[in-house]
Parts: sequence; structure tokens; C-alpha cells
Amino acid sequence: GISVHTRTAAESIDQKGKVVRAIHRETGEIRDFSYDQLVLATGARPILPDIDGLSLSGVHTLGSIEEALGIRKEIDIGRRKVVIVGGGLIGMEVAESLTERGADVTVVEVKSHILPQLLDREMAHLVEKHLAQNKVTVRTSTTVLALSGDEEGRVAAVKTSRGDIPAELVLLAVGVRPNVTLARDAGLATGPLGGILVDETLRTSDPDIFAGGDCVENRHMVTGAPIFAPMGSTANKHGRVIGDNLTGGSTRYPGVLGTVILKIFDFHVGATGLNEQAARAAGIDPVTAVTPGPDRAHYYPGAKTLFLKGVVDRDSGRWIGVQAAGPGEAAKRLDMAALAIAHGIPLEGIALADTCYAPPYANALDNLVHLATTLENKMKGLSDAYTPQEVKEKIDREEEFVMIDVRTPPEYRESRIDDPRNRLIPLGKLREQMATLPKNSEIVTYCKTSLRGYEALRTLRGAGFRNVRFMDG
Amino acid sequence: GISVHTRTAAESIDQKGKVVRAIHRETGEIRDFSYDQLVLATGARPILPDIDGLSLSGVHTLGSIEEALGIRKEIDIGRRKVVIVGGGLIGMEVAESLTERGADVTVVEVKSHILPQLLDREMAHLVEKHLAQNKVTVRTSTTVLALSGDEEGRVAAVKTSRGDIPAELVLLAVGVRPNVTLARDAGLATGPLGGILVDETLRTSDPDIFAGGDCVENRHMVTGAPIFAPMGSTANKHGRVIGDNLTGGSTRYPGVLGTVILKIFDFHVGATGLNEQAARAAGIDPVTAVTPGPDRAHYYPGAKTLFLKGVVDRDSGRWIGVQAAGPGEAAKRLDMAALAIAHGIPLEGIALADTCYAPPYANALDNLVHLATTLENKMKGLSDAYTPQEVKEKIDREEEFVMIDVRTPPEYRESRIDDPRNRLIPLGKLREQMATLPKNSEIVTYCKTSLRGYEALRTLRGAGFRNVRFMDG
Repeated sequence: GISVHTRTAAESIDQKGKVVRAIHRETGEIRDFSYDQLVLATGARPILPDIDGLSLSGVHTLGSIEEALGIRKEIDIGRRKVVIVGGGLIGMEVAESLTERGADVTVVEVKSHILPQLLDREMAHLVEKHLAQNKVTVRTSTTVLALSGDEEGRVAAVKTSRGDIPAELVLLAVGVRPNVTLARDAGLATGPLGGILVDETLRTSDPDIFAGGDCVENRHMVTGAPIFAPMGSTANKHGRVIGDNLTGGSTRYPGVLGTVILKIFDFHVGATGLNEQAARAAGIDPVTAVTPGPDRAHYYPGAKTLFLKGVVDRDSGRWIGVQAAGPGEAAKRLDMAALAIAHGIPLEGIALADTCYAPPYANALDNLVHLATTLENKMKGLSDAYTPQEVKEKIDREEEFVMIDVRTPPEYRESRIDDPRNRLIPLGKLREQMATLPKNSEIVTYCKTSLRGYEALRTLRGAGFRNVRFMDG
Repeated sequence: GISVHTRTAAESIDQKGKVVRAIHRETGEIRDFSYDQLVLATGARPILPDIDGLSLSGVHTLGSIEEALGIRKEIDIGRRKVVIVGGGLIGMEVAESLTERGADVTVVEVKSHILPQLLDREMAHLVEKHLAQNKVTVRTSTTVLALSGDEEGRVAAVKTSRGDIPAELVLLAVGVRPNVTLARDAGLATGPLGGILVDETLRTSDPDIFAGGDCVENRHMVTGAPIFAPMGSTANKHGRVIGDNLTGGSTRYPGVLGTVILKIFDFHVGATGLNEQAARAAGIDPVTAVTPGPDRAHYYPGAKTLFLKGVVDRDSGRWIGVQAAGPGEAAKRLDMAALAIAHGIPLEGIALADTCYAPPYANALDNLVHLATTLENKMKGLSDAYTPQEVKEKIDREEEFVMIDVRTPPEYRESRIDDPRNRLIPLGKLREQMATLPKNSEIVTYCKTSLRGYEALRTLRGAGFRNVRFMDG
């Protein structure tokens, strides 16, 4: 059977004696619980930023239902000027719900774009635009320095690196931290991110003690590195693995991809795996593509746009991440991507997958199928465009190719790529000088905006040059 | 470049000379087109049932936009009594759209339930109920014998094996057949299902002739058998494979799962892979589970029920099919299932997948995750219930176990399982006779409705018997 002891706080673990000592919160009674196997599910709590003014009235974290009810009450009695510190997942969800309750919300984010762990900059910008349309003010690249109050001890303003923001209510949403006091005091190992260290069976450094949920560190399935990913869905799955292993099973938890989805007004926003920035930080050379498109047949009533961004490891050809944003359906594409990444389904496996098709649900080629196809083309070099970054890398690798600057001589004089591969042939002169170009080398054309570069590519291809690209952007 | 010749019908293919002879539909001009490689995309056309009355006015197939416009016109001038012959995908889609246009629709299906290729009976029954709620009459197990008309040659009734159905408009939706005349006349091989035979590169029996879309047979990814699955999404993917292979690539089309989705009023209905019936027909011993559940957090506004049915191959443990029906979101679950089936992702890979979680999109355990978990439990024998079929198989395998009929002696006398394993111990006598039961053999309890059987299981487990199941249903 199951006995539940409420208002009873575990104080310490005696690993040798296999006893948990607990104290009753009201009576103060101390009680020892002996165990054969023990499970720690101590969760996480909101991080408090290291600034002055946290104890002012009107400053809240987002860790409990009591706090949520308190915040709602303050809004309802007219405290409408709300500043949310932190533009992550929780900050965004709260920004939406308080705006819909009538609040005037400003989100302050220290990084250069919102949802920085989730999205690359260009995807985040789509979301920032949507927030602005819904009257949420977003201040990025802005550090909160302190909270200041009035004479009555109520918060009045948020002092930031970019000036003061008036505030009647301040919500701290800068993340959560695992609760590991009990585990650490018992001498259980914790990881580099501060969570309890567990193996794939979710055993801690003491094999008779399991831990799961927000108090542990997970393993990232792409990088293999530790990741702190406190999600209810992950905690649920931990529960199943622990339950199975407690009763003699040998289930292994495969790790996480950091999959997240959230609704922000009419946008569905999410990601799974690594974004481009995180891929580069992990030493991966990414190939990326962004594919906007309708989320169902474009002629079907209610079709909405979804932006997908895919990230592939250039060396292995493996999917490593997908991001989604827009009013179009996103969860389906992210969940398919999560399976593709976790199970090493190649791009072609998605590009040719037998997915659901009917006008109310998808195009004949689903958005993720289209993304896979686009990434495959890029991987096969079938795309006509190089990014400036790619051209730079070709130069760095000392590849042999010819660059043709098709701008005008005055533009060329003003600024140019100083490299022996580089030649100036203004677009108007391309036909007459074409004979001087090597037929067997790769040619990369470029201009200022890429328009003339693309025209030069078409001209050269029309004249029989096969290995021509243009530099994009 | 691409030249398009409209109103030009290909008449014959000269494979040796590599020439297609075509005729202009208006001028009658004959023209030969020579080719290096040729692609056939001749599509499919509606099957006409072999019955009298097809030429009556008011009888339509569903093969062209002209026909669709004609049908709409007839509805709009007041011909509201519509009989749709065929309860498959197209029949259902048309039933919905004509009902919404004001028609009074009856669907006649020869099989015992609608969507017979897609759904097992219990799943189809959910859809039939929903059709009835939307005033569509469904007549299953009903064979259309003939169409009868009035003096003016207009259709007036559909004669069936179960009586006449008055009709002002009859739509024939009994399926489509590949157009293979051109291919067959040229001597290209066709398959057992009547489609053009192609290999994985989508080459026909002549390696310089490709074929794709509704005119070819596909390979089913689970059974490896030929399948005729005319879907726009498949045709699109064929196009990509052929395009790549025409230009020197070597892309292989992996085959199909028969994935289908359709909207029927407020229901989302679909399937991928094999249903239970198809699995048995293919000689597979299936383990199945049906899991109804809300499509997002049950407390989130707009949460709707989705029924999922999963089919697993008992021997290999592999997913082989998933069906979905209900007002809840279905496409996401089917697409994930399609990937799991195609790429051999084990049940555990879905049960522990890092899928999207937020209340507007899913439960902490997504519906498909829940289905995978349930199937895993069944595969591991962790489910408390045996189906009658499973008990029969245990007897057939001559397994050693004890069956306890916990009904009353009168019920026992009326009908019983005649098998030496079987014992009558009425529920009320179970405690006193318990000592006579073997502690080490498996015990299966049963009654009439499974209620007393389950109570007996609880009683025995409470008394320390560990290996007890009950027979369900």
C-alpha cells in the first residue's frame, strides 16, 4: 500500500542505516522512515536574481499557486503596470496571461533576444514582433540592476542598464534551480549544473536511491552533455522509469532534447534539439534552413503560416535541431522532429515519410517534409546560394575557386574582398569577359544585395558554366 | 527548358525507338516526341461498379472538377436526396461536404463497417455514431444491386440487398483504379493490384521509363507486399525521387504505410500501418490497445477526446499500426506513429520520447506516449487482463494454469468452459477454498461480465497469490 505523510519535511538521509528522518511541520514531531529503496523528487525552486529590492511588496516569483493567486489579486485591484524580469519560457507564458487579464506588461531580457535558450535570433524576432502587436513591450540586451520602492515599501520601478521602468508589480522569471539540499547533505553526487547526478536508470551515486524530475540533471541526446531541463513531461517519464527499476526492471531513460512548446497569443513557438547558436557553441558545423509555409493546404480555410528552422550537422548529416514559430500548427512538426533527432532518422527519411495528408491538416508535402527536403538540397550542394559565412570558410580552407564581384568599379573601390581569388567584372561586362573565366573551377558571384550576383549566375549558367553559385545576403 | 503540350494525349510508346506518339485532341494532329528518359504519371480513374443504371441522369463519379461542379449545381437546384455508394475515404469526405451544403445523405457500404481499409470495427463504430449525430444515414453490410430511374431517365432509387433507397442523386465512390493502358500497351510490367510495377528507384520494367503517382503500385513498409495507395502526398514524393534519379541521383522510395487522415464533421479520423484485421490477414499475431484521452491537458479550454488504437507485432515487438478517431487532434499522433513504424522506433522509444508538452498542446504524457506505455505493459504482461482470445490461445498452447469460474453454480450449469484447467469456485466461497489453490501456478479468474473476475483477482492478490489475471470482456 501507499502511505502519504503531508506537512512532513524530510530533513536528512542516513544512507548506511537506510533511514529518512523527517519532521512534521506543525507538531514538530520527528519521525524516522526506514527504506529499502528511496526516491528523491525534491523539484526545483525559482532563482532569485542578486539585486536589491527583492523584499519590496509587489515583487513575486512564480513558484506556487498561492503566489499566482496573489498576483492575480493585485492585477484585479488595479495594479496594471507589470514588469517581468526574464524573457524565457515562463516569462512569456505569464506575459500572455497577464496581458489578457488587462495588465500593461514589459518584459526585460538580458540577452539580445527573447527565448534565448530556445530560439535563434531570426526566429525570436518573429515572436518579438508578435508580442509588440499584442502590446507587450520587450526590452532585450537590458540588465536589471535593482528594484526601487516608494515610502510604503511597495515596488515602484525597475532600474535597468537602459534606464528605469515604472512598475506596480514585478515578476521574477529568471529560471529555476534544482532543490538538492537533502541530496547534497546526504553526500549524493551533484552535477556541473547543480542537479542531482543520476545514471540512465535514474539511480544516484547511491544505487538504492533514485532521483527524478526537476531536481536532477539530464543528458542531452545530441551533445551527450548534461542539461537541466525541468519539464513536467520529463518528470512523468522519469516516474515511469524509476517505478519500473524499483520493481526489478531495467529501463533506461534515453535523455532529453530540451523540447519545449509554448503558446504566445496567436503564436505557437517551440524547439527541439540544438538551435544554430547552441550547435556552434557545441563545436558543431551547422547547415541551416528556414522554411515559411502554410500549415495546411493554402486554399483551406484557416490556413496559417508556420516558420520552421532546421539545423543539421554538416559532418554527420544528422538532424540536430528544429525551431518553430508562427500562427500555424507547430506541435506536430516539433514532435516529428524530436523523433527524427532522437532516433537518427535521416533527412531523407523525413523527406519521403508517409505522413498524413488532407487539406485540413497539411500540404501534400508537410512543413517538416519540406524543411527536410530543403536541408537535403543544401547538404547535397543543390542550393544555389552560399552564405557569406560559407564563403569565408571556403577561403579559410584555402579552396580553389573564383570569386566575381559584379558590382561597379566605384563600389569596388569603396570596399572589396581582398583575396587573390577575387576579380571585378561588372555585370554589364560579364558577357564580353566570360571567355577569360575557367570552365572547370567553381565560380561564386556576388554584389551588394545579391540581386546582381544572382543575375550573373544565371548569365554564366546560360553560357554553359555549370559550377556557379552566388553569395546570398 | 520545359515545353507543355496541352490537349495532347499520349497514344503509344515505342520503347526501342524511344518515341512517344501523341495525338492532339482537337486538331487530330499526330506528333512524335523522342526521349532519352520517360516519366509516366497517368494517374487513376474512378471504378464503376458492375450494376445497371449507371447511365441514368443524376449518377456521378468523383473524378474531375467538372463533375464536382455538376454535383454542386444539382444540390443547389434542390436535389437533396443523395446516396453515396461506398463508405471509404472519398465517400466520407463527400458525405460531409454535401451534408453541410444541405443534402440529406445516405452512405451505403458493402462491408460491415465504414472505412474498412482504414479502421477496425470498434474504431469505425465511433465514426458511424458521429455521422448519425450529423444526420448522415449509414447502411453497412449492404450491397448495391442496381440503380433504377424514372420515365425521364433520372435516377430515382438505389436497389440494395436490404431494400430500396430513394435517391435524387447517386455518387459512386467505390475507389479508383490505376490508368495503365499506355504502359500495358507498351509492354511494361504491371503488378498484382493492376498498377504499373516499379522498383525502389521508381523505374518500370524498362529502366529508361519511370512511373509515379496514382498509376503505380507501392510497397507496404510493414508487410513488404504491394499496396495501391493513391495519395497526393505520395505522388509528390514520387516526383522528387524520380526527378533526382532522372538527373543522375540514386534516391530510393522507401514505400508507404497507407497513412490516411480525413475530417468528418468534428471528427479527425485516420490510420497508419496495419489495423488489427489487416495484421491478422497478413499472418501477424497482434497485441492491441485502445486508449481514449483528452488531446491536451484535460483542464485546458477546448480539450477534446481522441481515441487511439495501437497494433504491435507480438513476436517482434514492433509497432505495426495506429488508428485515430475523435474530436481531438489526431494528425500529430498519426505522423509520429508513421515515423515510429517506418523507422522501427521501439515502443519504449515513444513511451520515453521528449515530445512537446504544454497544456494547450498535450498532456504531460502525450496520447501516443500513453498508447505506447499501455502497449508496453501489455507486451510485458503487466496488464491484469487477458482477452478471451488470449485465454483460448493459452489453452491451445497447452499452457499449465488454473482457471477459476467465480460465477454461481446455476450459471455454471448453463454454460461453462470444458477444460481440465477449469474449476468452479463461486466468488462467495473463494476465501474458504483458497487453500486448495496452487501458489505457484498462474491463476486466471473469470465470470460473465469480468466484474466478479476482477474482484476475485483482488481477493487472491490480497492473500498473497502473485500470479493472477482475470479474463476481460
